[in-house]
Amino acid sequence: MIVRDFHEANKTDRKVANERWESVRLLLADDGMGFSFHITTIEGGSEHTFHYKNHFESVYCISGKGSIEDLATGTVHQIRPGVMYALDKHDKHTLRCEDTMVLACCFNPPVTGTEVHRADGSYAAAD
Amino acid sequence: MIVRDFHEANKTDRKVANERWESVRLLLADDGMGFSFHITTIEGGSEHTFHYKNHFESVYCISGKGSIEDLATGTVHQIRPGVMYALDKHDKHTLRCEDTMVLACCFNPPVTGTEVHRADGSYAAAD
Repeated sequence: MIVRDFHEANKTDRKVANERWESVRLLLADDGMGFSFHITTIEGGSEHTFHYKNHFESVYCISGKGSIEDLATGTVHQIRPGVMYALDKHDKHTLRCEDTMVLACCFNPPVTGTEVHRADGSYAAAD
Repeated sequence: MIVRDFHEANKTDRKVANERWESVRLLLADDGMGFSFHITTIEGGSEHTFHYKNHFESVYCISGKGSIEDLATGTVHQIRPGVMYALDKHDKHTLRCEDTMVLACCFNPPVTGTEVHRADGSYAAAD
């Protein structure tokens, strides 16, 4: 059994960040669960475009407020606590944050921890 | 892109419950994500023994208070908001809830939605 506390992991290299978001990886590939699990905080007033071509991701909003735009269709969905979105088609999207959002994120395949966002908004494949 | 709201899903057959817990399945096997994602609420004062012999499960505490006992070792871990546990060894465990807990749970392989807890605390394998 693995037990980890966000408030501790937050002070270690499990936290990755850029200037407008941070993500604490509570589970990574080497935990052997077959998915990774992250608590991600997006700063209010920021906007981010991601395109996980090599991963499925689900995101559940714990707190905060914003929206997600599906860039293939232009559809915008409001994000509030209790809303989940899942990128089942590796959907390219723009996340807009009104009030700081705390999100619970699952990735399959699991993130290894060494990925960086590339210019196209994706992570490289695990291989 | 799949978008679902806990507050809506809560009123549908995505919610399964017994008298002391309920679980709203926001993602199931047929969503094709390779994992399922559930928001589970455990009633304060209740105790549950589970043993997912055929699944890996991670659980992140959003709110509430309780503990988990690893029945193989007798070790008890406190559960507070921000604590995650992951049953990477299919660990048989007892969950004790002091104040109503809201938990974000991921299962691999994904739950299909038709499983019931068996007498031994497990779900049957997906096959």
